[in-house]
Amino acid sequence: MKRIVIGVILLLILYAVFIPKAFAQIDPLPSWNDGPVKQRILKFVENVTKENGPGYVPPAECIAIFDTDGTLWPEKPLPIELYFVIHRLQQLAPKHPQWRKTPPFKVLFEKNPKALLTLSKRDAEKLTLTAYAGMSQEDFRHEVQKWMAALQHPQFKGDVTKIYYEPMRELMEYLRGNVFKTFIVTGGSSDFVRILSEPLYGVPIDQVVGTEIGLRYKVAGGKSFVVRDPKVTSLDSGPLKPVNIERHIGRRPLMAAGNGKGDLEMLTYTADRGGRSLCMVIHHDDASREFDYRVDEVLKLAQERGWLIVSIKRDWKFVFPLSQK
Amino acid sequence: MKRIVIGVILLLILYAVFIPKAFAQIDPLPSWNDGPVKQRILKFVENVTKENGPGYVPPAECIAIFDTDGTLWPEKPLPIELYFVIHRLQQLAPKHPQWRKTPPFKVLFEKNPKALLTLSKRDAEKLTLTAYAGMSQEDFRHEVQKWMAALQHPQFKGDVTKIYYEPMRELMEYLRGNVFKTFIVTGGSSDFVRILSEPLYGVPIDQVVGTEIGLRYKVAGGKSFVVRDPKVTSLDSGPLKPVNIERHIGRRPLMAAGNGKGDLEMLTYTADRGGRSLCMVIHHDDASREFDYRVDEVLKLAQERGWLIVSIKRDWKFVFPLSQK
Repeated sequence: MKRIVIGVILLLILYAVFIPKAFAQIDPLPSWNDGPVKQRILKFVENVTKENGPGYVPPAECIAIFDTDGTLWPEKPLPIELYFVIHRLQQLAPKHPQWRKTPPFKVLFEKNPKALLTLSKRDAEKLTLTAYAGMSQEDFRHEVQKWMAALQHPQFKGDVTKIYYEPMRELMEYLRGNVFKTFIVTGGSSDFVRILSEPLYGVPIDQVVGTEIGLRYKVAGGKSFVVRDPKVTSLDSGPLKPVNIERHIGRRPLMAAGNGKGDLEMLTYTADRGGRSLCMVIHHDDASREFDYRVDEVLKLAQERGWLIVSIKRDWKFVFPLSQK
Repeated sequence: MKRIVIGVILLLILYAVFIPKAFAQIDPLPSWNDGPVKQRILKFVENVTKENGPGYVPPAECIAIFDTDGTLWPEKPLPIELYFVIHRLQQLAPKHPQWRKTPPFKVLFEKNPKALLTLSKRDAEKLTLTAYAGMSQEDFRHEVQKWMAALQHPQFKGDVTKIYYEPMRELMEYLRGNVFKTFIVTGGSSDFVRILSEPLYGVPIDQVVGTEIGLRYKVAGGKSFVVRDPKVTSLDSGPLKPVNIERHIGRRPLMAAGNGKGDLEMLTYTADRGGRSLCMVIHHDDASREFDYRVDEVLKLAQERGWLIVSIKRDWKFVFPLSQK
């Protein structure tokens, strides 16, 4: 009996001494190359979550926000959402024969798919609103889900659910494992991004803040609906990102990741919270694995303010999930 | 050695057999009187959360929404928020001597506090916007926090943090313990209710959907802010409640609780989700412990549609937290 007790105690001691070390050696960000960028992320999270440490931040303030296009998935050659818009308009086209002759719709029928790349922002918005309006929220979600299930993404020749940046998904998971709450703050439509936020990034639909179109309560056939109107009521970009963060999240974030000009105010608002914060900017410099383009205005401000510049070429071991590598 | 092993196994069996029963006998809603109302709530939660059961609802769809005024705390004699508005205006009054003569502001200086009860909705909105505008989000939150810490609520003669309906707080906690996500959908201002949502009800600030005033991004003295403008951009009441549920939560709720005419559309939208749902209406019929007033339109629809009518007199063992009983 005594021997058993001693044996159990010895086992407990061995466990207490060796297991934590073994766990500490598991890399929480295996898709990130070792180097100053990865180290700064790990150090930041360690600092703000260490109770009684000098950099400790209460859990409720551990909010991390992520832009989508160019930050969580590619924005080139076209934003992902536009593929759905085109798909939806092609579905609707037989009922709208006049589209073949009217810009911007006629671009949908051109043989050369490059014509789509020349779409102005205004035209892209017009196409989007036409594709999105006139149905209930449920019907819209159903359409996005069907498209997602069937889509072979033309650029990545695969399942649309595999187009996300694996290092960013991993980062979000790592943050959530360390008391952070992760939000998506996107220029894309809330309702579109919500269909993908949970399966791709583990972000619940109510933690997606995006561009909103007109919604209206309606009763038809004895049943209530919320239906969609063809107008943008809140474009979630630039100075409206901090405004929508206040409306939806209700406090300044502790951490923010973006890549485009539309993210500058959201990054600035995070950096200005007073005390510690981590702002990161994704720099697309890897033509062979993704795309190569610079957003000078963003890189300049990032350098001035000491934000973390993530080079896809240097800092990411993988860009897409392994099966897509 | 063998005897010890047998002993341990026996203990495990005893544990497995008796502990769950003991736990099952702990009443999750001790502030609710036994009866059909309490039984229906317990049954509903049991049904929708029982995996492989006929009424099972996936966890992501287990969304419960709660109105505030008259549902989570009293709305009589005045909505709680108006006490803060008055407090804030009295602070500002020395800089606005003209208020003493101008309606609706002059009501603040009248000796008879009953004058406040005659305020029209329009006047109450005017007072609120004047009290709320012209400061940053951080400054506003700071003011509400200071007021909350200092306030002795005139009606309940105590700490403002003790004015909530204990049975409703308990219900929210019980739901969260059973995979539900709880949201507040309030006609009150999001930014005001958010200060109280977590300490009073355990609802995180980003799970509060309320009335919004104009917000604007501004850079001053080299620092970025979101500042408040004196206009209502979204009044969260009536048909706008379902619209804001879609904007913020992104799906129909499974459960909804309300009490006023402004909650009818939100209750209807929940009831119309298709499949199971639970809608409840708080009926204020207890003059001795709270207030006694009927909202006939709400009671009528509740009866027609078979929604749960919660009688404060009959169904609540306690109305306020025990120290306030």
